[in-house]
Amino acid sequence: MTEKGLLLVLSGPSGVGKGTVKSAIVENKVFPFEYSVSMTTRKPRPGEVDGQDYYFVSEEKFGEAIKQGELLEYNKYVNNYYGTPFAPVKKMLDEGKDVLLEIDVNGAKTVREKMPDGVFIFLTPPDLHTLHLRLENRGTESEDVILGRINQARQEILVMQDYDYAVVNDTVANAVDHIKAIVDAEHVSVKRVIDTYRKMVRED
Amino acid sequence: MTEKGLLLVLSGPSGVGKGTVKSAIVENKVFPFEYSVSMTTRKPRPGEVDGQDYYFVSEEKFGEAIKQGELLEYNKYVNNYYGTPFAPVKKMLDEGKDVLLEIDVNGAKTVREKMPDGVFIFLTPPDLHTLHLRLENRGTESEDVILGRINQARQEILVMQDYDYAVVNDTVANAVDHIKAIVDAEHVSVKRVIDTYRKMVRED
Repeated sequence: MTEKGLLLVLSGPSGVGKGTVKSAIVENKVFPFEYSVSMTTRKPRPGEVDGQDYYFVSEEKFGEAIKQGELLEYNKYVNNYYGTPFAPVKKMLDEGKDVLLEIDVNGAKTVREKMPDGVFIFLTPPDLHTLHLRLENRGTESEDVILGRINQARQEILVMQDYDYAVVNDTVANAVDHIKAIVDAEHVSVKRVIDTYRKMVRED
Repeated sequence: MTEKGLLLVLSGPSGVGKGTVKSAIVENKVFPFEYSVSMTTRKPRPGEVDGQDYYFVSEEKFGEAIKQGELLEYNKYVNNYYGTPFAPVKKMLDEGKDVLLEIDVNGAKTVREKMPDGVFIFLTPPDLHTLHLRLENRGTESEDVILGRINQARQEILVMQDYDYAVVNDTVANAVDHIKAIVDAEHVSVKRVIDTYRKMVRED
């Protein structure tokens, strides 16, 4: 039986190590998934292939894609636009393939609005997880440092609450193990498989 | 940080192999969890220890436990009552320990009403999963056999829809792997960990 693929959205605060975790998943072939090729207005670097590394387009064409609703999400970094074309992602999911998107928290928020069935994984900074130890052992750090970190933690927790899973990136290996378990578990979740079973007994 | 433990409810149609899967989890120490000792009106067999194998009680005491709401679920098999005492389960969960209950679908339904935060795993007969192949290859079996299986499948799917996960028991090893993944994933689900994070930043 073929269910729709999972849209896996790996996100988290800037600097948490999303890219490293994604690379480890890719390199160790932790589970099979499809890439989504991003669209960008950035100029190709030597060796980069259009349609493989990125879809390289003009600002005008990118603006048109936004207007036509062709992008699942997009963002601007350092004067260049980057976006995720919607159609290929939808096609891969319909074919039963899992798609992994590694994007920032703003992008993830947009994707959640358009694809609420996605699996949203928040990569959690290890110091958020261990913050309670520091709170219990005040005196080792200045009150300013601790209060600053608490405020930042509040922001991170506000973002995290909209996700399905919170995976602490204490080590890349641990984070990858958890993500693998999440993918395995989501593939056998009743909300994903029940329709296939229901269709089956309607066939007679 | 200590979250509450998971209440894992392993259930499924009679004969699907719940006991075998549970034994494999226990023997291979797939993940740590606590046993719940059942209460029964059955007479102890030679070697069985009260409070360890079962709490052996009279029918009168069992009836009192039901009346006082002390049982999470109970059932009658062959003139004897079997039930799950609520208090020790609650205590273990509060201490952050996972508890595994292997019970029939009626018991699971009762547990779901009392403990909706539990993780409900439906062990699926492999022939339900492969039924579509038989439907596609009609002729190898009589129409009566197929229609009978379709009716049974409809019942199984009706029960399955109230569960969180549907794990096909094609091989015990596969089923155990999926259950391990489910436990890992549930431990990092945001709905389970967010309160601990929130409490942390309220400590200042």
